[in-house]
Amino acid sequence: MEIYKSYNKNFGYSYCFGAFPVIELINFHPEIVLKVFISSSFKQSPDNINIFEICKCKNISIEINDKIFDRLSPKDNCFVIGVFKKYSAMLDIDSSHVVLVNPSNAGNLGTIIRTMVGFEINNLAIVRPGVDIFEPKVIRASMGALFKIKFKYYERFSDYKDCFRDHKMYTFMLNGKSSMKHVKHNSDKRFSLIFGNEACGLPADYLNIGNSIVINHSHQIDSLALPIAFGIGAYEFYKNNKGEV
Amino acid sequence: MEIYKSYNKNFGYSYCFGAFPVIELINFHPEIVLKVFISSSFKQSPDNINIFEICKCKNISIEINDKIFDRLSPKDNCFVIGVFKKYSAMLDIDSSHVVLVNPSNAGNLGTIIRTMVGFEINNLAIVRPGVDIFEPKVIRASMGALFKIKFKYYERFSDYKDCFRDHKMYTFMLNGKSSMKHVKHNSDKRFSLIFGNEACGLPADYLNIGNSIVINHSHQIDSLALPIAFGIGAYEFYKNNKGEV
Repeated sequence: MEIYKSYNKNFGYSYCFGAFPVIELINFHPEIVLKVFISSSFKQSPDNINIFEICKCKNISIEINDKIFDRLSPKDNCFVIGVFKKYSAMLDIDSSHVVLVNPSNAGNLGTIIRTMVGFEINNLAIVRPGVDIFEPKVIRASMGALFKIKFKYYERFSDYKDCFRDHKMYTFMLNGKSSMKHVKHNSDKRFSLIFGNEACGLPADYLNIGNSIVINHSHQIDSLALPIAFGIGAYEFYKNNKGEV
Repeated sequence: MEIYKSYNKNFGYSYCFGAFPVIELINFHPEIVLKVFISSSFKQSPDNINIFEICKCKNISIEINDKIFDRLSPKDNCFVIGVFKKYSAMLDIDSSHVVLVNPSNAGNLGTIIRTMVGFEINNLAIVRPGVDIFEPKVIRASMGALFKIKFKYYERFSDYKDCFRDHKMYTFMLNGKSSMKHVKHNSDKRFSLIFGNEACGLPADYLNIGNSIVINHSHQIDSLALPIAFGIGAYEFYKNNKGEV
């Protein structure tokens, strides 16, 4: 039997904690699930999807095993662990994207993924160096939304840009040339929303990559937190491109 | 000499970690600062405010002491700790407010405070039970913005409402009656932006307290994360009430 240890970025697999995200994992990517562990304290709620049934139906190995929870579980109230093989995917050329350049915080990345899905952007490019998207903390903060998106790492931003020349590029920067309030995107065209690192933002040369946008705020703070700036930007694009929102 | 232990909510004082937030603390509330500790690894940057000078000028005791960093510091790269007396304040009747009902996560509270200040709302009401605003994690996530706001805890929402009858109340709820997109606030009137707990939102009876607002999103997620929903709401009110944003 394989001994599963605390997650390490060099592993070929990762862990997903909690019944709800594990069910998202199984629904969206049954083929990558290696194993599901259940704690003996787990109570199947009659209102929820039965995890034993769904595993049986998808031919996924499921095992009651309390020891693995003592070893791996990040908190006391976790009763389900999914072990899954790492994966990646080509981004869709006919969809809009989010591009994160050098994101460093796992919780922020997870929150951004949850927000992306909320505003119907399901493709994410990450320009290295960047936090490992398979860190369990990312998956937890995403509330399982990670399994609903396509994502891919790029060594350089130019590698990304070369693949998606027809996307309209919007860079979010403190010295952006247009205020978010005045940006009008033509909804016929796919867009890429591009954000920099938590501490230092995008380098100055991103000012001329496409349209640079600033979200104005008071001078009482240096900047908005990255997931907040992302949330506002994604909301504005969603709102402006959806008649009924 | 007082022995400072790891923070506990029953203490009459708390800690602020890092040179930047400690300088914010000293600038905004010099009268509550009990002590400043400096690590021997601290390097005063010539570009920044000199912490020794500002302490001298404000008559604040400052001490180089490495042991306290081993005991209290949350991470390796912290070289300044401010110890300060807890405080509270009446909220301004002629300013707009944020009201958080039963917030439970310290990092979220700090992020919300940073965002509030960014969008020029400097008064915060917290309805109990709620996370302790003096937890060092709140201050850290706020990046020192905590010291720029007034805040007050209320036992019940009705206690808050009775004090601010002239404020226009906006409750953010998944089943809110108006879409954020269509809300037009009259900028002559003070407002209160009211948000519920991270996991369960506002109770159903908040639907009729004032104007209830929904921030629409896709059905692929259950809800937006609380600080994201807050950021979008605060941004919209800021944007609509500031001509030049």
